[in-house]
Amino acid sequence: MRVKVLGSAAGGGFPQWNCGCSNCSGLRAGTLRGSQRTQTQVALSADPYSWFLLNASPDLRHQTLSSRDFVAPNTGRGTPIAGIVLTSADVDSVMGLLHLREFQPLRILATPSVLRILKEDNSIFRVLDRSIPPTEWVPLPLYKTIPMRGCDAQGVQTNLTCRAMTVGGDFPDYVTPSLRKDLSQNEAVVALEISHRDKSLFYAPSIPELTIACKPSIESSNVALLDGTFWTDCELIHVIGSGKRAREIGHLPLSGEGGLLDQLRNVDRARRVLIHINNTNPVLDEESLANRSARDAGFEISYDGMEFEL
Amino acid sequence: MRVKVLGSAAGGGFPQWNCGCSNCSGLRAGTLRGSQRTQTQVALSADPYSWFLLNASPDLRHQTLSSRDFVAPNTGRGTPIAGIVLTSADVDSVMGLLHLREFQPLRILATPSVLRILKEDNSIFRVLDRSIPPTEWVPLPLYKTIPMRGCDAQGVQTNLTCRAMTVGGDFPDYVTPSLRKDLSQNEAVVALEISHRDKSLFYAPSIPELTIACKPSIESSNVALLDGTFWTDCELIHVIGSGKRAREIGHLPLSGEGGLLDQLRNVDRARRVLIHINNTNPVLDEESLANRSARDAGFEISYDGMEFEL
Repeated sequence: MRVKVLGSAAGGGFPQWNCGCSNCSGLRAGTLRGSQRTQTQVALSADPYSWFLLNASPDLRHQTLSSRDFVAPNTGRGTPIAGIVLTSADVDSVMGLLHLREFQPLRILATPSVLRILKEDNSIFRVLDRSIPPTEWVPLPLYKTIPMRGCDAQGVQTNLTCRAMTVGGDFPDYVTPSLRKDLSQNEAVVALEISHRDKSLFYAPSIPELTIACKPSIESSNVALLDGTFWTDCELIHVIGSGKRAREIGHLPLSGEGGLLDQLRNVDRARRVLIHINNTNPVLDEESLANRSARDAGFEISYDGMEFEL
Repeated sequence: MRVKVLGSAAGGGFPQWNCGCSNCSGLRAGTLRGSQRTQTQVALSADPYSWFLLNASPDLRHQTLSSRDFVAPNTGRGTPIAGIVLTSADVDSVMGLLHLREFQPLRILATPSVLRILKEDNSIFRVLDRSIPPTEWVPLPLYKTIPMRGCDAQGVQTNLTCRAMTVGGDFPDYVTPSLRKDLSQNEAVVALEISHRDKSLFYAPSIPELTIACKPSIESSNVALLDGTFWTDCELIHVIGSGKRAREIGHLPLSGEGGLLDQLRNVDRARRVLIHINNTNPVLDEESLANRSARDAGFEISYDGMEFEL
């Protein structure tokens, strides 16, 4: 299984268009040791012909255009993108689906609640149904291993499987209150275990809490791409002067007692790799104490273009 | 007034992610004389501090990041983007609004019907209301000259004015049928006349038909950025083997009797510039007969990075 990190930043990217924090200003001025990052996007493949996307980033068009892996055929229309699996209805998980309009049959998996948000609360995603045949919107069950394949029109079969598990958390702010009360809370945010033969990838760009199901799945994986959004719980309030705590918006902070680094300090087998890193996070500064602490705790920090072969 | 073309292609850009037409394949192979194009985005300014966007392209994040004009301040949060004016609810006009989430007060103008599509039919755009104060969604009246200014929080005042006029056409396919029947057809797609002192820009990336109000406004403008989507009425059907005619999806074709070039052949004063050019359009090939014909008819073909000083 090949795994590509096409983007590694949280919503807004790095630098963020309207942000003058020390990270963003430092990167623009060239005084910060670090690199530009597009918004989090992962793609994986177990054969030479087809790719699956984990979520659909707002930067997806540029991310796929800048790689030879996703080029269309030389005649007609088509794509090596066989399917997309969504972990939440957050804007940075779903906005990129709109880049995939253009009459292309696709297969999109998400929990039934996330599908309802896209299909019942947001008519704009109906642009994906204009293809012939229309997009297949497939319910993603919790705690059940399912085969990953392309839409019927593509006929892509793989040996990849996917298992989703809840990681707590809530639906995005934007969801209409009348729909929200009909949704299943445990379908709001999921982590994915993607397996191919005896290898597995654990994927969780948002971890509101490390639920009981997660830890063994992380420990048994070969690579775990984990929520690296915030370093501290109050980081956003500290930088923009108002707002919410990391935990309130569905991200366990990295540092401190009970933080992600602390809770996963003793994982040995899996490569633990931070992704979905917010522009305010000090780990983005490669000379920072935070960056050093994360690496000392055995974590890698993903970057745009990082690849894994499992 | 400074006018910047940040993107010049129709929906999907050029090349398009899933397209193997002769234009897209030729551009990828380096055998077509032409250039890459992001999706149509225009920005304008009449002072050194603030910019207004005409529509919000799916590529907006990359388009603004690649220009020094849109950089955030060195501390705190902020943006030189004072407001956005929408000409329709098409995905390629509105998707980029989601790039502008991130707690930034903004002012967005659109016809009352387009506002209803965004506010009542698509909860995802509520992410823009998280800023303090929240985004101002301002109804854009038809045939009335209004001042352009920033949101109250920014306090940006300009000498720019805007006048919207209907150009026929319909709302996007995706709109929920129950909402659609409540909307005013003449608010579906508009052209804009943006004026500063005695200079004016005419902006119409979608022209379903050249209505009576449009022609004098085009003739009296200094620069008219005009719908260059398709060369022929059946272009899309010809390339993808199915689909709809240009006129059916709201674009007067460029060529032929009654086409845009024919109808505006005798306009003298205005620079007539084609924008929103679809990846299938032969004018994208600089060595094509179509490209030559458009230029012989007195039209320019916009490109990413083109600028005007009015």
